[in-house]
Amino acid sequence: MGGTSVKAALVGRDLAPVATLREPTRRVAGAVDIDHIASMITRLADGAAVAGVGVAVPGVVDDTTGHVVTAVNLGWHNLPLQTALSSLTGMPLKVRHDVRTGGLAEFTVGAAAGVANAVFLPIGTGIAAAFQVDGRPLVAGGYAGEIGHLVVDPGGAPCNCGALGCLETLAAAPAVSRRYAERTGRTATAAEVAARLEEGDADAAAVWADAVAALGAALAAAVAMVGPEVIVLGGGLAEAGDALVGPVRDDLHARLTFQRKPAVVRAALGQDAGRAGAALLGWEAADGA
Amino acid sequence: MGGTSVKAALVGRDLAPVATLREPTRRVAGAVDIDHIASMITRLADGAAVAGVGVAVPGVVDDTTGHVVTAVNLGWHNLPLQTALSSLTGMPLKVRHDVRTGGLAEFTVGAAAGVANAVFLPIGTGIAAAFQVDGRPLVAGGYAGEIGHLVVDPGGAPCNCGALGCLETLAAAPAVSRRYAERTGRTATAAEVAARLEEGDADAAAVWADAVAALGAALAAAVAMVGPEVIVLGGGLAEAGDALVGPVRDDLHARLTFQRKPAVVRAALGQDAGRAGAALLGWEAADGA
Repeated sequence: MGGTSVKAALVGRDLAPVATLREPTRRVAGAVDIDHIASMITRLADGAAVAGVGVAVPGVVDDTTGHVVTAVNLGWHNLPLQTALSSLTGMPLKVRHDVRTGGLAEFTVGAAAGVANAVFLPIGTGIAAAFQVDGRPLVAGGYAGEIGHLVVDPGGAPCNCGALGCLETLAAAPAVSRRYAERTGRTATAAEVAARLEEGDADAAAVWADAVAALGAALAAAVAMVGPEVIVLGGGLAEAGDALVGPVRDDLHARLTFQRKPAVVRAALGQDAGRAGAALLGWEAADGA
Repeated sequence: MGGTSVKAALVGRDLAPVATLREPTRRVAGAVDIDHIASMITRLADGAAVAGVGVAVPGVVDDTTGHVVTAVNLGWHNLPLQTALSSLTGMPLKVRHDVRTGGLAEFTVGAAAGVANAVFLPIGTGIAAAFQVDGRPLVAGGYAGEIGHLVVDPGGAPCNCGALGCLETLAAAPAVSRRYAERTGRTATAAEVAARLEEGDADAAAVWADAVAALGAALAAAVAMVGPEVIVLGGGLAEAGDALVGPVRDDLHARLTFQRKPAVVRAALGQDAGRAGAALLGWEAADGA
């Protein structure tokens, strides 16, 4: 579920898509139209023996209840989405935070499959983490995993959240793009900045090094707090090539002393993590788990 | 269990002590003597119908298995302590990390009783946290909660762990004492520094302000990661009076933006948290939980 489009897939037990549906997000008085979401589910399910449905939502989402605390991009606040969509579709259905949905996939069938203590960190327009500790996801009413708003540069650039120097101000894709433009006067996407590293572009290297160091510092804090064995980097910045995972691993390991040094790896499912996670969530709903 | 003495108590279901025992720590070739620990348990239990035993150990302790990964002050490494003590005493017995044992008490019968998402942060010679998320303690093989080694002052004073500028270098009791001595040339315990705040001692105020800011920064990171509703401050520094809890609360809240602002309160059980937690752990052992 996104602010501009909604993607849905009908998948088998093997998580492979049988059919997909993508439609522009519809709104009523600024808020995303729940009836339209329910309609997409029922149309996609038409004629199939659907066991269960998983719905991934950005924002502050309490996975335990399927309640959306706040989803700024969707115009939702205090919305019992799971109850509403279950009622409208008549199907077993679960709602979960989008990053924790991707994490469910990476922790179940992806790069950290079967690992009891792991972090999934997709780096894109924003940065948030899914934490798995002792084999269970951390939810905390929807407030767990907001590592993008860890302050790594006190007094640094203003963040959308209102604080200064959050991880997102140095390492999110728009920040990499913005900081490169500030240095050079030239526009480039984060992927283009990554590509220019190989061309020996010193400005690209400086911006990238700041992003790597910021990720290393934030992940060192995560290691101190939740003790992961594996850290899975995903999203656009990790997909940009080998420039991210190795340097972040080296930076992080150099910061650690007595703590165990986690493996740092690239996401196995790439852009499919959300779909795979939603499918796993649908099976959880079907099983009444 | 400590490096200089071992304290034990026989307690009722109401957690009140019926009898106590305190003996100097005994060592064999540098490592704390397990037979002596077992002997203290059996002597204290003599004649009583003991349901279960809880043992609290400092260091890196995997509560899930009762395995001590490393306890530097006790000379233990890779020690299956729970198995050994269960065998020696013949009683249902559980081993847990000392801070998580205190946390169990504060989260069950103390200042955060019944709160699903909470942090217990005792501040003493060292600093470590017990995290409770979604109603469960975080263990991560014994590596969760090492907030004392979050870097809050990059390039700052050397920490015992080998890094620079860890929270402990600014806010642990020895750091407060050391930093006051460095400024003034006068020795003072952390409690004495706290007392001098009320006398208008500007050096005490400066050292204390640094400790408060370091705790605020580290707790803001904890809020971003694990989303607590209540933060319980304990240990010697919190017991020193009202100078810690209020200022840390104000500093923390000023750092937060969209995150929910947790209550920050003083521990309810004070120095008794470890004993109460070990007793609760003993009941868990008795119940086979």
